Amino acid sequence: MYPFLKGHGTENDFVLLPDHEGFEHGDLPAERVRALCDRRAGIGGDGVLRVIRTAVIDPAQADQAEWFMDYRNADGSVSEMCGNGIRVFAQHLIAEGLVPADQPVPIATRDGLKIVVVNPDDTLTADLGRPQLLGQSEVTVGDRAWGARHVDLGNPHAVAFVDDLTDAGLLLDEPGYDHGEYPEGVNVEFVVRQGERHVAMRVHERGSGETRSCGTGACAVMVAVADADGDRPDGREVTYRVDVPGGVLNVTWTADDRVLLTGPAEIVAAGIADL
Amino acid sequence: MYPFLKGHGTENDFVLLPDHEGFEHGDLPAERVRALCDRRAGIGGDGVLRVIRTAVIDPAQADQAEWFMDYRNADGSVSEMCGNGIRVFAQHLIAEGLVPADQPVPIATRDGLKIVVVNPDDTLTADLGRPQLLGQSEVTVGDRAWGARHVDLGNPHAVAFVDDLTDAGLLLDEPGYDHGEYPEGVNVEFVVRQGERHVAMRVHERGSGETRSCGTGACAVMVAVADADGDRPDGREVTYRVDVPGGVLNVTWTADDRVLLTGPAEIVAAGIADL
Repeated sequence: MYPFLKGHGTENDFVLLPDHEGFEHGDLPAERVRALCDRRAGIGGDGVLRVIRTAVIDPAQADQAEWFMDYRNADGSVSEMCGNGIRVFAQHLIAEGLVPADQPVPIATRDGLKIVVVNPDDTLTADLGRPQLLGQSEVTVGDRAWGARHVDLGNPHAVAFVDDLTDAGLLLDEPGYDHGEYPEGVNVEFVVRQGERHVAMRVHERGSGETRSCGTGACAVMVAVADADGDRPDGREVTYRVDVPGGVLNVTWTADDRVLLTGPAEIVAAGIADL
Repeated sequence: MYPFLKGHGTENDFVLLPDHEGFEHGDLPAERVRALCDRRAGIGGDGVLRVIRTAVIDPAQADQAEWFMDYRNADGSVSEMCGNGIRVFAQHLIAEGLVPADQPVPIATRDGLKIVVVNPDDTLTADLGRPQLLGQSEVTVGDRAWGARHVDLGNPHAVAFVDDLTDAGLLLDEPGYDHGEYPEGVNVEFVVRQGERHVAMRVHERGSGETRSCGTGACAVMVAVADADGDRPDGREVTYRVDVPGGVLNVTWTADDRVLLTGPAEIVAAGIADL
């Protein structure tokens, strides 16, 4: 028996595991992650966020952030970062009094230090750092194929412009992609334009299947669209609204070439589990 | 904030809501049920089992059972009974010391009194009462159609014999059925024979979609198969193994014309929720 919480950001949902000293879950075996994320036999989630002291798991970052977000995909695999998860993680740290509520929250991740800020409207903004606009390749679903832009945000994304979001079908299976371009797999985003600086997307996350939202995916989409449209003359700051199936995110590409992801985060339950 | 538990029987999963005096949830609004059962924004479940004193909700049954299983489908609608849910419900009553552990557990439901027994191997057996073998009609999925036997177990079932369980497709949408035969909707079971007194099934539950298991559905399947095969000469007791996507159930049709459903029940988490 050990404590857990359940939370979500735009319906990208997570099981949080408080394990401050790392005593409870050790290496956090993949089987436990899968059992927790099982939507019928377990709690259910797109991934697990272990809450652990940076000093315990990654001493090199310990001087920058007291808390480390140990993120795992639903299949048990390790992941670098999660743009929706980090807001939920920050919300939890604030709610539990583990960090001061009135200051930016530094969080260590496998993709380095991230900073989360609480806005007056209770949304949270995470600075996801500098995006890398990379090459062009192809993604496929069934017998359909689209060109896709490679954008890296600590994790790899393939952003495909489609005419209609239903084109991507049920996304029950992993879309096809160029394994040379993405040797460690890829999150695939399908995007349509909705209006001025307003797009809508669907996403297939590696290790989790289609999800209701992906934070870094929303950022990758915004960067790919703004770049394709030449919508950042002189590197001026621009903000896009990105609709995901589970809600609304806003992404800002700053003048100093960073992406800021803004959206809600909710903790809906807390308890003890035996999985 | 109120207490909840999460449990499952053969991966038919439930949010349990202890509300002994009915003070916490009142009429238990459909919106709250839907929010709890939402697999991404909530806890997630095929239904909700409210744990309430019979005297509070159905005084007419109060002399027969202290506890009433107030079952709701994931869409918020009221349901009479749940064959997997009642094992999970009984497991919870025993674990919390709300009933003696060494005696059969009487549970009041909208389908009347049910009795649950714990077996030496920790499975639980629920007496689901007398099955009613009714008429024949047709169910459809997409452009496929099959004859289906109407079996009533407190709730209505349509049992369709198919050549292959994949025939029923993805079951994302409700199968078509005869609304004259089933004015209040129906749970549709697809069944294949696997061996002697051994069948496998998939199920689409009204109000919940395809689920990993349905206890009354397994009983309906067993009764329809045993009847179709003339496998109960002189009304002798017979037991069938019924494989469901989420595990294994055993169904006994007794000499006195009752069905007993045997299977596992697990409580996997407990906590407080805010939904």
